[in-house]
Amino acid sequence: MNKTRGPVRIGVLGCGTVGSEVVRLLQASATDLASRIGAPLELVGVAVKDPADPLPGNLDLDRTLLTGDALALAQRADVVVELMGGIEPARSAILAAIGAGASVVTANKALLGLHGPELYAAASAAGVEIYFEAAVGGAIPILRPIRESLAGDTITRVLGIVNGTTNYVLDRMTLEGLDFGEALRQAQRLGYAEADPTADIEGYDAASKAAILASLAFHTRVSADQVYREGIGQITAASVEAAGATGHVVKLLAIVERKGSAGVIARVHPSLVPLSHPLASVHGAFNAIYVEAEAAGELMFYGHGAGGRPTASAVVGDLVTVARHRVDGSLGPGESAYLALPALPVGQASTRYQIRLFVKDQPGVLAGVSRVFAAEGVSIETVRQTAGDGSNGVELATLTVVTHQAPERSLERVAQALRREATVASVVDVIRVEGV
Amino acid sequence: MNKTRGPVRIGVLGCGTVGSEVVRLLQASATDLASRIGAPLELVGVAVKDPADPLPGNLDLDRTLLTGDALALAQRADVVVELMGGIEPARSAILAAIGAGASVVTANKALLGLHGPELYAAASAAGVEIYFEAAVGGAIPILRPIRESLAGDTITRVLGIVNGTTNYVLDRMTLEGLDFGEALRQAQRLGYAEADPTADIEGYDAASKAAILASLAFHTRVSADQVYREGIGQITAASVEAAGATGHVVKLLAIVERKGSAGVIARVHPSLVPLSHPLASVHGAFNAIYVEAEAAGELMFYGHGAGGRPTASAVVGDLVTVARHRVDGSLGPGESAYLALPALPVGQASTRYQIRLFVKDQPGVLAGVSRVFAAEGVSIETVRQTAGDGSNGVELATLTVVTHQAPERSLERVAQALRREATVASVVDVIRVEGV
Repeated sequence: MNKTRGPVRIGVLGCGTVGSEVVRLLQASATDLASRIGAPLELVGVAVKDPADPLPGNLDLDRTLLTGDALALAQRADVVVELMGGIEPARSAILAAIGAGASVVTANKALLGLHGPELYAAASAAGVEIYFEAAVGGAIPILRPIRESLAGDTITRVLGIVNGTTNYVLDRMTLEGLDFGEALRQAQRLGYAEADPTADIEGYDAASKAAILASLAFHTRVSADQVYREGIGQITAASVEAAGATGHVVKLLAIVERKGSAGVIARVHPSLVPLSHPLASVHGAFNAIYVEAEAAGELMFYGHGAGGRPTASAVVGDLVTVARHRVDGSLGPGESAYLALPALPVGQASTRYQIRLFVKDQPGVLAGVSRVFAAEGVSIETVRQTAGDGSNGVELATLTVVTHQAPERSLERVAQALRREATVASVVDVIRVEGV
Repeated sequence: MNKTRGPVRIGVLGCGTVGSEVVRLLQASATDLASRIGAPLELVGVAVKDPADPLPGNLDLDRTLLTGDALALAQRADVVVELMGGIEPARSAILAAIGAGASVVTANKALLGLHGPELYAAASAAGVEIYFEAAVGGAIPILRPIRESLAGDTITRVLGIVNGTTNYVLDRMTLEGLDFGEALRQAQRLGYAEADPTADIEGYDAASKAAILASLAFHTRVSADQVYREGIGQITAASVEAAGATGHVVKLLAIVERKGSAGVIARVHPSLVPLSHPLASVHGAFNAIYVEAEAAGELMFYGHGAGGRPTASAVVGDLVTVARHRVDGSLGPGESAYLALPALPVGQASTRYQIRLFVKDQPGVLAGVSRVFAAEGVSIETVRQTAGDGSNGVELATLTVVTHQAPERSLERVAQALRREATVASVVDVIRVEGV
């Protein structure tokens, strides 16, 4: 990389919750940052929608730094911090910055989850850097540890609570017995969920992060649209209660796993996690990422996954690295996709399952149900039957079956066969059991 | 740094538990490591005490690579991996390596805790690197996140369970009600404690790690002999039970904290941790480091703190970074000690305390004890009195007092005054309460 002489010029694109906190940190820590980088930072502009709009909070900023032209600002800085979010104009602004020889720091998981490789290739061709620690896990240092600290190891699986909104909702359901709708409304009142919570609740946000985690952990390109995705909208108070009865909590997990040299599977779905697993005690809107590696064994990284100040910490941490590299003319590790493993469909995953059934309360039911599992080679670990109380209209008992590890496809066939079974009134839910 | 052309030559000093696993990883992952570094690694020698001795485990190594001359090997490699441990000859070998233009990866916390600055200065002067992720927290990526990921933030405090032996012993005492001696013998039988457990039990190992953590977190030189240190030998089954009764567990914590611009305090001692704190559920020989930063808030890093393979993961991770830098001629961040804050004595710390007293079971005792605390301005949060059962010979009650935050010095004066109080038979123990 070409060396930057004198102050490192910083352009910040976007001045919302995160952008304003980044500006505040740059102001408050200017002396420290200069010592750590070896040169002062100079804020040369902040791009906003309308420079005439009021600034967020009590941000004390020279208004002449404001501009409505993000693309022009992106081309007159040494380091561009992209915090606009979304696909466009963020993508064009980042490409313009790279084209003008700037390095980029971004927190934009949606953009990276879909267009990461295009941006990494452009940065590499231009001899500049793109860093994005804040895109997964907010303040939690997770991407740098995966890319650099674990570069001597072989990562086999990552299980992440990477969406604070869904963790908050599920945690309220678990701790207070709330139903999904009530918990979601509480989260919205408290600012943990947006007015339109689709991206969080349906798992799109977690899927973007899963794609980023899989790409880094497995040295392979994985796109967000290759991530299998189920949201938490189908989880009921009864599902959560049944999970508790078998010693589990329900969490929305982003799971990325490597199947040797055959490929990688990335999936986002509600999961039962045993109470003894470190991820089970991640409460509220906290995030945590659990990493399994061949030599290191199990690692967990825990902290605030969102919020202006925590996210700004990760952004400015990247900014220090990128600016330092510009001062001494070096480059950190770029995209590493040399393994180029195929992304496998979720049908090739293998995990444990909890299946809840309403069954007729009569002799022989358990034998019939067991035969269905056996016919598909799915081994049962525990069965729990609770007598019907008439609340479902007829005298139906609830059967909760937890399986040993089984292929996803076998489980699908089991579920289909159970629906055809005369003694089974309905398959209430099927939830994967993870973390064992 | 000068660029290395062709393979990067690696010399490994020490072939015990960690060294042999490093060699194994280098062999098993050679292709992956070459892809990640941009050049192959070539193992040019392994220094052992006596090259005629049998190799550990089933290590498959060309015996012509073995040498008894660590100093000579240190001078014919591009990267030297020091895993001998102890002060000498490790220090001389590292200085010889640096003098010959090699970069160094080490896990030697005792050496870095005492002589870190000398080694960092030598590396900087020679334009080479010294990396040491494995020195704290074994496999857990913690030093790189502190040095790099949090470089945009201000770290205020770090609380670490950084010694697996003491955590195992205290965990057995907590979960099984064992006394210290029994738990220690169990740990020795299972290989979690050494035959001479002094360095672990008396907190010397944790103090070295506290010095390293404080130096990196606060951009200040802190030496292991500036760390206040108390071991866990005085912790009894009764202390652990009393902790449980007030909702705490006993942990040996390494605590480093910044008092604004006044200085830093580093201390290692048994601590009561509230059951709700993430550190309370770190069981067995696991390690965890809890970091508090102004913008990021609370973060926790969890994993295997010792063992050959986990430690080798961190060593080879550093090796990849250092080798990559040699291939492209760059340098990572060196020592950062620009803040140069003074190391303050533990007397200037301020925390909460639990004090257990044997007192005469008679009216007016509580009033007298309360006056002693009030006279020193120490505010009491809770008091719990359990009637004497005659087991201590006379009719003595136990009084367990938990204070609000108070200066260490005031607490010392309270303890002295309590010993003079006529109604107090003895001060059983005083344990600091942390993590609130």
